[in-house]
Amino acid sequence: MKVAVLGATGMVGRTFVGLLEGHPWFKVEKLVASERSAGKRYGELVEDAPEEFREIEVVSLGEFLKDPDVDLVFNALPASISREVEERLAEQIPVFTNARAHRYDDDVPILVPEVNPGHLKLIEVQREKRGWNGFIVTNPNCSTAVLTVSLAPLVEFGIKRVHVATMQAISGAGFSGLSALAIQDNVIPLISGEEWKIENESRKILGRLDGKGITPAPFEVSAIATRVPVLHGHTEAVFVELERGSVEEIRGAFGAFDPLKELDLPSYEKPLVYTDVPQPRLHRDRGRGLTVTVGRLEESGSAFKYVVTGHNLVRGAAGGSLLNAELARRLGYI
Amino acid sequence: MKVAVLGATGMVGRTFVGLLEGHPWFKVEKLVASERSAGKRYGELVEDAPEEFREIEVVSLGEFLKDPDVDLVFNALPASISREVEERLAEQIPVFTNARAHRYDDDVPILVPEVNPGHLKLIEVQREKRGWNGFIVTNPNCSTAVLTVSLAPLVEFGIKRVHVATMQAISGAGFSGLSALAIQDNVIPLISGEEWKIENESRKILGRLDGKGITPAPFEVSAIATRVPVLHGHTEAVFVELERGSVEEIRGAFGAFDPLKELDLPSYEKPLVYTDVPQPRLHRDRGRGLTVTVGRLEESGSAFKYVVTGHNLVRGAAGGSLLNAELARRLGYI
Amino acid sequence: MKVAVLGATGMVGRTFVGLLEGHPWFKVEKLVASERSAGKRYGELVEDAPEEFREIEVVSLGEFLKDPDVDLVFNALPASISREVEERLAEQIPVFTNARAHRYDDDVPILVPEVNPGHLKLIEVQREKRGWNGFIVTNPNCSTAVLTVSLAPLVEFGIKRVHVATMQAISGAGFSGLSALAIQDNVIPLISGEEWKIENESRKILGRLDGKGITPAPFEVSAIATRVPVLHGHTEAVFVELERGSVEEIRGAFGAFDPLKELDLPSYEKPLVYTDVPQPRLHRDRGRGLTVTVGRLEESGSAFKYVVTGHNLVRGAAGGSLLNAELARRLGYI
Amino acid sequence: MKVAVLGATGMVGRTFVGLLEGHPWFKVEKLVASERSAGKRYGELVEDAPEEFREIEVVSLGEFLKDPDVDLVFNALPASISREVEERLAEQIPVFTNARAHRYDDDVPILVPEVNPGHLKLIEVQREKRGWNGFIVTNPNCSTAVLTVSLAPLVEFGIKRVHVATMQAISGAGFSGLSALAIQDNVIPLISGEEWKIENESRKILGRLDGKGITPAPFEVSAIATRVPVLHGHTEAVFVELERGSVEEIRGAFGAFDPLKELDLPSYEKPLVYTDVPQPRLHRDRGRGLTVTVGRLEESGSAFKYVVTGHNLVRGAAGGSLLNAELARRLGYI
Repeated sequence: MKVAVLGATGMVGRTFVGLLEGHPWFKVEKLVASERSAGKRYGELVEDAPEEFREIEVVSLGEFLKDPDVDLVFNALPASISREVEERLAEQIPVFTNARAHRYDDDVPILVPEVNPGHLKLIEVQREKRGWNGFIVTNPNCSTAVLTVSLAPLVEFGIKRVHVATMQAISGAGFSGLSALAIQDNVIPLISGEEWKIENESRKILGRLDGKGITPAPFEVSAIATRVPVLHGHTEAVFVELERGSVEEIRGAFGAFDPLKELDLPSYEKPLVYTDVPQPRLHRDRGRGLTVTVGRLEESGSAFKYVVTGHNLVRGAAGGSLLNAELARRLGYI
Repeated sequence: MKVAVLGATGMVGRTFVGLLEGHPWFKVEKLVASERSAGKRYGELVEDAPEEFREIEVVSLGEFLKDPDVDLVFNALPASISREVEERLAEQIPVFTNARAHRYDDDVPILVPEVNPGHLKLIEVQREKRGWNGFIVTNPNCSTAVLTVSLAPLVEFGIKRVHVATMQAISGAGFSGLSALAIQDNVIPLISGEEWKIENESRKILGRLDGKGITPAPFEVSAIATRVPVLHGHTEAVFVELERGSVEEIRGAFGAFDPLKELDLPSYEKPLVYTDVPQPRLHRDRGRGLTVTVGRLEESGSAFKYVVTGHNLVRGAAGGSLLNAELARRLGYI
Repeated sequence: MKVAVLGATGMVGRTFVGLLEGHPWFKVEKLVASERSAGKRYGELVEDAPEEFREIEVVSLGEFLKDPDVDLVFNALPASISREVEERLAEQIPVFTNARAHRYDDDVPILVPEVNPGHLKLIEVQREKRGWNGFIVTNPNCSTAVLTVSLAPLVEFGIKRVHVATMQAISGAGFSGLSALAIQDNVIPLISGEEWKIENESRKILGRLDGKGITPAPFEVSAIATRVPVLHGHTEAVFVELERGSVEEIRGAFGAFDPLKELDLPSYEKPLVYTDVPQPRLHRDRGRGLTVTVGRLEESGSAFKYVVTGHNLVRGAAGGSLLNAELARRLGYI
Repeated sequence: MKVAVLGATGMVGRTFVGLLEGHPWFKVEKLVASERSAGKRYGELVEDAPEEFREIEVVSLGEFLKDPDVDLVFNALPASISREVEERLAEQIPVFTNARAHRYDDDVPILVPEVNPGHLKLIEVQREKRGWNGFIVTNPNCSTAVLTVSLAPLVEFGIKRVHVATMQAISGAGFSGLSALAIQDNVIPLISGEEWKIENESRKILGRLDGKGITPAPFEVSAIATRVPVLHGHTEAVFVELERGSVEEIRGAFGAFDPLKELDLPSYEKPLVYTDVPQPRLHRDRGRGLTVTVGRLEESGSAFKYVVTGHNLVRGAAGGSLLNAELARRLGYI
């Protein structure tokens, strides 16, 4: 299948490109970026670009939209311009997007393939309602992706409430998103819009698809989001109240969580590994960035507490989106 | 009053010495450290020692104990050797200590002067029970100090439960406590014993003194403690459930909290200031390190959430202990 | 004297304002910033502004130029707009500027007051040539300021050649000048234009004023400039070849360097202190940021080597400029 | 060939083990560490140990020395105990060591295979003189390794003098070698013994082997060594005076430097790559850590200046030593 990556020179776009190197199903045909980058070779623009793609000539978004001519689009453009671009492309082509533009639409799934694969069915609603040949599948915000992978095995114990404090990496803010002078030797407990996203996206992802839409999960999620001086890897301290379950049972459920193993997706890795002390620098690259590391599980009063860490650019963005596409293909949606 | 500082060359000891420069009530007579440092001038051992104390000859603990000859002791020794040393000194001399050795004794207060000044009355129980002329007053663990200053104004709203995730500074681990290779570009969600301390010390501090002991506060406190690459200043993300109260009322209570203002203690600073986005590097030195900064208060589902940051070596250790001594003197205990 | 600070909300501007708090000679009358900031109180724009200036209403540059009405201007505007602004102001008012716009003009001194106070005489040339009532005095680039303070005591030994590698702090790039993702866990050996400035400004500063201009010092200066993950404080590794002198003599000259002591300038601090191991975090605030720390002096083959560190925003920018103004006043130029 | 790694749990030892994973010539038979680690599986001691070695039971040094039974030893023990251990082993077995214990012996080469492969001939001197069946080959100190790879292509231009300022990574100090509180937000311009090593080892490496010993290269090397807050990768700012040559010629020599290409060593990578702005975080892993990155070459007065960066644990330690062993085998010494 011929694939295009939109926003291919940004942080998330580069991660898409890196993950698509040597992919058995998806062949990168077009790398799309801003007018300024158009006409340059990708290797000129991205110093550590994979050999395979260094010679590809980057095209501008305007040029690309005139004649996409690919079978699949991965979108890493900013949210501000994504809504229109995605809708136009989805008329003909499946779009897997990291942008938040359509995440909260009733007929668009926020997909974490190991967590809510069934939500892919929304594609049918979407096509019917919008008359598209293609479709849009979003992945969640990076913190939500890491969180929901750790919450999925807890669903069977009856989640009643979640309190989560995030310690998010610098690269989550984009290449120039954060001034060194702001974050060095500091913690910044403000990431605009992030807490709302975590609270609402996770409830949609863990919600129930019935008929034509998703009913958000009925439990409360409350988040405090902070930025810390770490390059990559979001770490989250989680307090969760459950209907039932013991530390042993939960630990067992964490360890056993491997729901898509049988599907043999090309990029699939065990999504969750338990380690005594999860740490972003040590564990962010586990499973080529797709494995989330959970640990420090303890019962504490009426709640359980644990810590989870995962790669924000891979599990939390490009890698999750790629898995979404692989799942969609395996399940026959593309 | 003649004062000795035990452990004067460590991180907390230096902070004591710095705060005692030019103190109107307490005159540093003795700086006590290990055998290895004994006989050297303080200025040789501590590059940035205040001019006032540079020429003082450091004495060894053994030497000091033979003939303390001071009116008051500040203790910054490690917990391991503090129990015995403190008990021996307290027979004659008031001891204000940062060590945890006696914190959990029934007749020893963990004092945060703005939060539980009434607990000083335990001194009487202590003297009676132990037959001492002196006494022991402890300050809490650094994270607990910062947390309880922010919880004190919430007591009137009926605290039901507290979930707190800490992001603690490197200096909390002592000068050589943490390898650079461990913490650089990382978050380490394990600080040995810390969570237990936060959970139990805060309930003792906010507990009720009746007759001869303290009944811990009846609410749950659950903590996840992490270390982040910040030099000084512990930051804490707090979820608190209350019986009643609104964001406006709580914000008002934070702003109004200034309980010892009238006592005119020499080192007193407003203990709590509300700021939109509290940040350790920007706010740790507020009020010469004694002011805790709180912000980001929001209602979130059934809980309120906020962030608080404060200087772990000052508010969380030496500064808190010094305020304890000032309060004890003002109230006539010394 | 009534004073204006141009560019008062940037990194260097804030440093000017901080240093002018309670100044015995200079009273801040006007704080000038961009159109966007105009009309706001300074305390709204700069969180940690000194109490004294919080209520001052910031004026726009356009507004200010219409009617400066001050006796002295400190300029912290970017170089790009400084040339014209400074020339217009200098027609009537003395301008002390951190911008590089006029540094390389024949009749404008680059002044480090302890190093080349005699160059102030260029003011006379300037006034005569340009017909101004005011004048322009520049301070050097931050790395050059630190370097030349350490080179000045070596002049008597006959400087033949200087090789210097700088390790410069983040704040030298301005508040948003450097992305956290670029510098975290990294060294960036490229600071645009910096090496040229160090090489040429230091030779002008150490040059000889004869008649109407300055002949640059006859020795070679070669610089490699790098950025390191340090907040404030530029550190420089210096190799210097001398005509004569021993380690003891040079060390003595470093220690004795205190040339303006007798002038009793309000902000003056000993400009150079020798310490075994100079380090930016430990020593940048020495002498309120005006003292440069030198150390590790050794003879090594045909050269001497040493390390020097100093505060880039104070000694290397606003503080140096303020000392320039104080010297100019003491010497009767204003 | 059966191989043992001594000091297998330290920073350099782990790097040896990582590089030996799947090695076509060398099979790790024994992992040797302290008494404390003996008896444990390697995977228990080193979280990220390669799968291949996780189950190997670590043996103590004492146990190992009783019956080494391997064909080759890689030594990553501390210098303090290495002298005796290496001499005892070398009686029978070739030893490739990162320890400095024997580096300065007349009959022991400090080998950088791309730089001074001919020095391997000292093995013959060594065997004859000491009556050993085995031998000792050392690799240089980490900073020297990076420096000499960049100097080797300059030899043809006649090196007259070298001034080098290093910015060295934290991991060069070993796992617990450096306190986070010391280096965070700081530069520490003191690394004990390092400058002497750089100055002397580089002259030995670039020296001439004649008859039975090495005459150090006749040029001066002067070094200032600093530690910076970077995890891995030493960066060096180099000023070099040459007899002849232009920027173009030198740049060409840097680019062409690939001396052992024909030998087809299993771990060989191009040793030197020219990049505009070499940076430790971006380039330390080039060529799996064996490639040194050079850039910023300019002529500056009577010298040339450039910047070079390379991985201190790979190129500067274990990787260099492994290449030494591969070269020795290819040339028939083992």
